Amino acid sequence: MDDRIREHAETLVGWSARVEEGDDVLISVGEGAHELGVAVAERLGDRGANVVSLYGSPELSRAYLRAHDGEFETDPEFELALYERADSVLSLRGSRNASARADVPGEIRREYATAREGIREAHTNTDWVSTIHPTRAMAQQAGMSYAAYREFVYDAILRDWKQLAEEMDRLKTLLDEASTARVVAGGAGTDLSFSLEDRRAVNSAASVAYDSHNLPSGEVFTAPRDATGEITFDVPMTIRGARVRNARLELVDGVVVDWAAELGEEGLTEIVETDDGARRFGEFGVGMNRGIDRVTDQILFDEKMAGTVHFALGRAYDACLPEGESGNDSAVHVDLIADMRGGDTKLEIDGETVQRGGYFRWEDGFEGAED
Amino acid sequence: MDDRIREHAETLVGWSARVEEGDDVLISVGEGAHELGVAVAERLGDRGANVVSLYGSPELSRAYLRAHDGEFETDPEFELALYERADSVLSLRGSRNASARADVPGEIRREYATAREGIREAHTNTDWVSTIHPTRAMAQQAGMSYAAYREFVYDAILRDWKQLAEEMDRLKTLLDEASTARVVAGGAGTDLSFSLEDRRAVNSAASVAYDSHNLPSGEVFTAPRDATGEITFDVPMTIRGARVRNARLELVDGVVVDWAAELGEEGLTEIVETDDGARRFGEFGVGMNRGIDRVTDQILFDEKMAGTVHFALGRAYDACLPEGESGNDSAVHVDLIADMRGGDTKLEIDGETVQRGGYFRWEDGFEGAED
Repeated sequence: MDDRIREHAETLVGWSARVEEGDDVLISVGEGAHELGVAVAERLGDRGANVVSLYGSPELSRAYLRAHDGEFETDPEFELALYERADSVLSLRGSRNASARADVPGEIRREYATAREGIREAHTNTDWVSTIHPTRAMAQQAGMSYAAYREFVYDAILRDWKQLAEEMDRLKTLLDEASTARVVAGGAGTDLSFSLEDRRAVNSAASVAYDSHNLPSGEVFTAPRDATGEITFDVPMTIRGARVRNARLELVDGVVVDWAAELGEEGLTEIVETDDGARRFGEFGVGMNRGIDRVTDQILFDEKMAGTVHFALGRAYDACLPEGESGNDSAVHVDLIADMRGGDTKLEIDGETVQRGGYFRWEDGFEGAED
Repeated sequence: MDDRIREHAETLVGWSARVEEGDDVLISVGEGAHELGVAVAERLGDRGANVVSLYGSPELSRAYLRAHDGEFETDPEFELALYERADSVLSLRGSRNASARADVPGEIRREYATAREGIREAHTNTDWVSTIHPTRAMAQQAGMSYAAYREFVYDAILRDWKQLAEEMDRLKTLLDEASTARVVAGGAGTDLSFSLEDRRAVNSAASVAYDSHNLPSGEVFTAPRDATGEITFDVPMTIRGARVRNARLELVDGVVVDWAAELGEEGLTEIVETDDGARRFGEFGVGMNRGIDRVTDQILFDEKMAGTVHFALGRAYDACLPEGESGNDSAVHVDLIADMRGGDTKLEIDGETVQRGGYFRWEDGFEGAED
């Protein structure tokens, strides 16, 4: 077995999920994630945890859903009991075909999801972590060879997470204490300001100890208020199966008043017009994972890329809001990403430039970048 | 997908497990059983059952067990809760390597099994069925090409089970009402008599409706008493990894008093000397599955082969005993098989010949066979 798979498993079990002796750990093994499953099982045995292995197969799921009449029982008791008693749930994704469930009718998916809200809540209440094992199908989706894709994935996953968490904590502190922030990218015509009053940032350091549930991670995010200005999202991505290029939004007092895109404008319109909350930003995030150095059109990686920022149209995360306050609500949460790795970009917090050309002021590249 | 896989799934879900709408069904998908898993998921969706899919991977299990210090928690709560609430457990075995767990120390296996007695009991209390999906590894074990092995497996599984159950019921009735039985095979020097007083036969028709939990099945078995005589088991088999050929036993008043084997005598001795119960027969079974027409050294198939009988050294099944009575007890239950497909063989019940040359008296071949 590739040593990196063993290191991945140890990072997942040790750093991310913080599994301890006697923990009841549910692992879900994707169709293409067998090798990671073996490595994780070994780490869990070594720690003296208890394990139940689920088969996370989109093909089984597709067959089941398509054959079902759609009247799903609410939270089947045996499955709910399993999730309610689990301490951790580790999802090892590893797709053999990203489109495996493409022909499951949307209505059936929705009915199924609706019937499982209790199970989803029980899942969320565990120390859950989702990670991915690189497969050929995912390499294909990223337009990369399998060998290169694996290099890419392990560069993103096998970080010095403790050190990165400390660095991200510096930005979190700045955002927590900030009244306002501003994102500027001259070449892209971006100049957007927003308030951060009463907002709390999350240090997403790929560990349940940081309320962070994805491996890899590596971003700091918060919930912006009253965004005003213009921004171009120049990182290409696929949203709901459609390619989107250079989506451009204009906001006034927190509301999107105009939008356009070089490609995929129709899909963008559909998203913005979902509901009132979809016209507002629910998230402002800053990618800080230097292991991610290229766009792969996989949101799990792209939004963590060091030197990018992202805003999400729609739902805000409760973790960013004062206790008891509900933030922007919407049926959607769609991330859009802007590249800040350039000569004329900056992130200002309370009027001070904290990032320039994609480098923070505590990084070597900062001084060299143009102001 | 091969139509036979779909038929297999329908036989499993419909005939064997009798799954109904709203049932909580746990399926365990072996490493090589993905396709059968997909077909079974489809059938379960069609019936409106609820499904949780486990990953039945010997490689994950091996990695976990080898890394563990051996002090296993007794019946981990989350797993016990799952099995206690399941209506059915369908195990879809499909080995990619029959020796995948060969290097797990025996002591660790025993500790693990001992710690899971409650889970095993909960499993046994469900409508559980175990079946196999043919793989290349299993074809190799049987010494057959993959195509031929699949033909063989589906011939064994895709029977007219209703009709076979009716036929087997005829033999069950004869055995239930019998005082004595006798097995004779002149060429092999076999002449063994035994009592069936107070014994009840099981019609193992591959369905929970018949207290039968394997697909394929196709045998009628009971618990013999006071066997006396000699018998040669001429169906070659592998027991505990060692080849056994022509094991020959002599019994007096139910106890093995002498034994020998052309090959594997040492292993046979080890079995016979396990404990007092291992010197007695716990089971007499009659294979009645005409889809199984060759020996593959896989006990699930071999002991069901029409025209064979088998006796097991060791433990008897409670289902064959009067309520409250405990039959032969032992730490072992080792099946040995004798071929009755020959000119000079017969099975007598209360002095009447009911099978001759491998054919029952209600079958066409019976009259043609020599008496």
